[in-house]
Amino acid sequence: MCYRHPAPSEFRIAEVLTALGNPIRMAVVRVLNAGGQHNCTSVLNLIGIESKSTMTHHWRVLRESGVIFKEPSGRENLVTLRRADLDARYPGLLDTVLSGALADDAMAKRVARHG
Amino acid sequence: MCYRHPAPSEFRIAEVLTALGNPIRMAVVRVLNAGGQHNCTSVLNLIGIESKSTMTHHWRVLRESGVIFKEPSGRENLVTLRRADLDARYPGLLDTVLSGALADDAMAKRVARHG
Repeated sequence: MCYRHPAPSEFRIAEVLTALGNPIRMAVVRVLNAGGQHNCTSVLNLIGIESKSTMTHHWRVLRESGVIFKEPSGRENLVTLRRADLDARYPGLLDTVLSGALADDAMAKRVARHG
Repeated sequence: MCYRHPAPSEFRIAEVLTALGNPIRMAVVRVLNAGGQHNCTSVLNLIGIESKSTMTHHWRVLRESGVIFKEPSGRENLVTLRRADLDARYPGLLDTVLSGALADDAMAKRVARHG
């Protein structure tokens, strides 16, 4: 089974933003951005999601928007962030979004500390 | 009638990205970013949307995510981009997203020209 991936010329900013604009999908992107080789199961283990069926929709949104590659490998699917393609098409976008997620983490900690 | 607006500390990157990740809402943001004072009607005229009811949901998503201020003024509602708040909370995000929209425009023209 092979998956269809859009060419960079087919990317649309609205679709990329929609893909990134969800906490679960953002968690996936953060795991992939941290490096290492991942299959779907290892990502789910890292972000603490047990239900594979919950993720079916999320994997598709990430793949169809151009955010990730998903390729069969043996009995699993390898997933990788399309950083080079995203950076070429939308310079700085991925980094500002990932920084935004860190800013949210920092804000949540500050709010938790100060009540 | 007054509208509730989140404080910058309440912004969430997922909500901001979801707000921006829609072609109509992105068109609104591009109009507001270009400057000038706008009410809801003048924005709709500029982006070519005739149905006010279509927009009710979009205005709410933009306001509740922190992307715009919407304030009553006489019989109309003034709308403004919360650029300073967004830039302070998520540096560079709005500019990279707006550049991404321009990149999409350029790509669409290239595709139209070459086939």
